[in-house]
Parts: sequence; C-alpha cells; structure tokens
Amino acid sequence: MQRAEFDARLDALAAEVNAALDKLFREDCDTALYESMRYSLAAGGKRLRPVLLLKFAEAGGLERGRAMDFACAIELIHTYSLIHDDLPCMDDDDLRRGRPSNHIVYGYAGAMLAGDALLNAAFELMLGCRSVPPEDVLAAAASIAESSGRRGMILGQSLDLADAADDPAARERLSSLKTSAIISGACRAGLLLAGVRDEKLISAAGIYAENIGIAFQIRDDVLDVTSNSETLGKPVGSDTEKTTFVSLLGIENAQKRIDELTDAAISAVEPLDGEGFFSSLAKMLAGRRF
Amino acid sequence: MQRAEFDARLDALAAEVNAALDKLFREDCDTALYESMRYSLAAGGKRLRPVLLLKFAEAGGLERGRAMDFACAIELIHTYSLIHDDLPCMDDDDLRRGRPSNHIVYGYAGAMLAGDALLNAAFELMLGCRSVPPEDVLAAAASIAESSGRRGMILGQSLDLADAADDPAARERLSSLKTSAIISGACRAGLLLAGVRDEKLISAAGIYAENIGIAFQIRDDVLDVTSNSETLGKPVGSDTEKTTFVSLLGIENAQKRIDELTDAAISAVEPLDGEGFFSSLAKMLAGRRF
Repeated sequence: MQRAEFDARLDALAAEVNAALDKLFREDCDTALYESMRYSLAAGGKRLRPVLLLKFAEAGGLERGRAMDFACAIELIHTYSLIHDDLPCMDDDDLRRGRPSNHIVYGYAGAMLAGDALLNAAFELMLGCRSVPPEDVLAAAASIAESSGRRGMILGQSLDLADAADDPAARERLSSLKTSAIISGACRAGLLLAGVRDEKLISAAGIYAENIGIAFQIRDDVLDVTSNSETLGKPVGSDTEKTTFVSLLGIENAQKRIDELTDAAISAVEPLDGEGFFSSLAKMLAGRRF
Repeated sequence: MQRAEFDARLDALAAEVNAALDKLFREDCDTALYESMRYSLAAGGKRLRPVLLLKFAEAGGLERGRAMDFACAIELIHTYSLIHDDLPCMDDDDLRRGRPSNHIVYGYAGAMLAGDALLNAAFELMLGCRSVPPEDVLAAAASIAESSGRRGMILGQSLDLADAADDPAARERLSSLKTSAIISGACRAGLLLAGVRDEKLISAAGIYAENIGIAFQIRDDVLDVTSNSETLGKPVGSDTEKTTFVSLLGIENAQKRIDELTDAAISAVEPLDGEGFFSSLAKMLAGRRF
C-alpha cells in the first residue's frame, strides 16, 4: 500500500470514529460533567486504538459498523487515562494536544470525575452492544477490561510513579503496560467481537499490538530529543532529569530497536493482514518509508 | 423478624461478602497498587450494597453464591467512589471509617489510581462471571454500569460540586444520585442476574432502593446534628456552613420524611419480601424499632 493511500484510509476511518464519538452524551449535555467529557473526547488525535479495533473486527470477518460501540469505548478509555495522567498529582500537564488540559478548564475535581465517567461510560457502551452475540460482547469487553486495568494500563501508571525504570528492559515493560496493553486489548477485542476464538490469531494480534506500542513509545522519545535539539539547540541526551529510551540506549540503538519491534509486529500480523493495512500502520508509527 | 435475628443474618451475609472480597487481588499483591486497593476494601462497613444484591438474587430464585462476583463488584465500585470522594480536590477527608484515608497512606496519585483500578476491576469481575447465562450477565452489569455512571452516582458527585442543593427537593435529587443510584443498580442487578425480566418487579426493587437510600442520607444528617449537639453542646442547626436535610427541614420534619420514605420502600418491596428481610433492613436504616 502506498503511503498516500494508507493516509487516506486512516483519515476516513478516523472520520467514521469521530462521527460516532460526536453522537455520544448529546442527549444529556446540560451539566458540566458532560461538557468536560465531550471537551476531551473532541480534542482529537489519530484515533489509532478505535481504528485498530475496527480493522481487526473486519479481519475477523465482521462488518466494521458492528464494532463501532467498542471502537468508541476504547477511545473513551484512552481519553480518561489522558485526563487522569494530566492531573497535578500525576504528570501535572497544563496542555494536551495544544489545548488546555481538562483540569485547567473544568477544575481538578471536575477533571477527575470526567475521567471516572468516561471509564464507566466505556463499559456502558460495550455492555449495551447488541450487534454481535452476547458471548462475543462479553469476551471482547473482558479483553479490554483486562488490558486497561490493574494488570495492564493502570499497573503501568502505578509503576511509573514508583519506579525509575532505568534499564531498557524495565522501560520496555513500562511501555508495554502503559501504552501497548490497551492497544492489545483493542486488537484482540476486534477479533473476539467477530467471533474469532483461534488462540494463534488472538495471540498474533496481541504480539502485533505489543510491538507497535513499544516502538511508538521509543520513537516518541527519539522525536523528543531530535526535535528538541533542532529547535532549542540542546545537545542530544542533555536532558538528564528524566530517563528515556534515548538516554538509556542512545539514538542509534533506539532506532535499531524500533526497527526490530516493527519487523516483529509485521511478521506476527501477517496471517491477518490481507490488505497490508496493519503493516502500513506499523511502518507509519515507526516513521519508516513505505 | 426480630431485630436480633435480622442483625445475625446481616452479619452472616456480610461475612460471606468479606470472605469473597478477601480473595481478590491476592495473586498479584506485589505492588503498591494492589496494596492500596486492598487497604480500602478491607476497611469494612456493613457491605449493604453487596448484601442487597445477594438477597435480591435470592428473591429472584438464584442461589446466592452465583451472584457473589457481582456482589463483590458493587462493593468495589462503592469503595472506589469513597477513595475518590476523600481526595483533596473533592471532600478532602483524612479519615474514613476511623482509619487514614487511602491518599493519606498511598499518596494522591496512588489513591486516584487505586480508585480507577477498583472501578475497572469491578467490570472485570462482572464480565468474568460464568455462573449465570451471558444475557443475564450483560443485563445485570448494564444495570450497575448505568447506576454508577454519568447519569447516576458520578452525576451526583458532579452536581454536588457545583450546586448548593438548598431546597429539600434538590437535596433529595442529589441523594438519589449520589447514594440511591448504586443501591438501585445493586438491587435490580440481583433480580436481573436471576433472570427476572418482569418490569414491575425490577421497578419495585428500584423504588425500594431509591427510598431507603434517601432515607439513610436524611438520617445521617439527623444523627450528625443530634450527636454533635449531644457531644459538643452545639445548638441544633447551628452549623451554618453546609446545607443538610436538617438545616432545610428541621429535625421533626426530617424524621417525618424518613418515615414516609421507609414506608414507601417497605410497601414497594412487599411482593419480593417473603422473608421480611428487606423491610427489616429499611427499618434498621431508618433507626426504627422492629
């Protein structure tokens, strides 16, 4: 698939997700709570997690639209995690995607409750899904719940508070939990929604997600350093305050690791990647040429 | 039912719930996250919500043990709401049930994540329940999710931040959302788990829950004032800082309202109350003689 074609497909899928997200919580938009939920949901982003869920549902043979409740649900969970991550007690970030963070606009308590409500609403959406059989709803929702919870994303956030993760393996484990877990939950849920129960395929989706998640995180650190050094003239690696993949590996090895992980992802997902969409996405995240 | 018999039954049921709760998260107790989740779960209380869920499941014809995953789940949700409510940005309470609040022990971020993880774990537990058919799992979990979310408990918490609720009707609406909603979710979920779909019975459980929740809240305000005035010698109603049912209604009318609500609860639940357990519970919460 050419880059331009891939980008167009990705945009079209993100637009489908945005249209579905935009319909949520409209009927009850009379309080600060709904406003704050919608504020952060509308902040955008590439909608990678919902897009992956939709595409894995398709790869499993399900019509895409029937997975839309779940696609929205995974974005609600991602959004809640960003709101809580930005709070003063966590990363204390005033900006998110170029706009004031939720708590800057709606206050500390308001933002915490918006996050709580988004997580809760994700489960409401999934539990209300009637477009696939109940067994598939339960299996897919369980996959997402496991990935977002105390053994997945939240564990990652908790370890991140306590642990410097100052060797490459520990740092990858952290990225696996904080970033890859819900990507994996989304990919697996797509297949499960489609009724796929072949453990090899489910596991292939998980390995793909795991690898692109970590690769994305390493690349984020690389871009941080290279764009910093370009724009601010700081020498590469001079930011000694925080441990990053670059501070641990150096830029060259970090780039190598991105490539390894991306190759592993593409290889794992091959049986499900008739269209080449998943490998294109992995390449895009790795900043690789198509 | 005599008071002593009721108390013994309630204690026995709470002990069953405690035994089930105690088994949770044991396998992964190696991090601060699990410790903090277990800390607040172990803090006790009467376990009224899970007990009600179990008893409504029984009233619907289900063996009690098969509803235990859901009973634990509702207590996880209640516990998460208390942890988040106690945070500095909300009520800023250092004590909960006579022990330091979660954030005093585990820090602000740790407590927020413990709450997030408990909410998430509640859904993991419900989605993993295999002791009733998938349709009943979905219906019961949806009832709980709706009651705990943006149209139920969290809406109540959000309104409570913004709104003085300084007339009796507004205050009852607040109690209905903050307190009654998840009691109602629990009672209805018990019936739904048992496969009950008779709208009259489901609605009877909801009305019962609604009324005992508000009555309990009013009584809480009454006890606050009477115990204050007894122990501190403050004149009744002198606490002008916060609006309570007593400040709005006066003690006498507050007591009248408790009685009305309790009578309505007992009357609504009558078709489901063969044992008299539910009416006894309503009387207990109202501080009424048996």
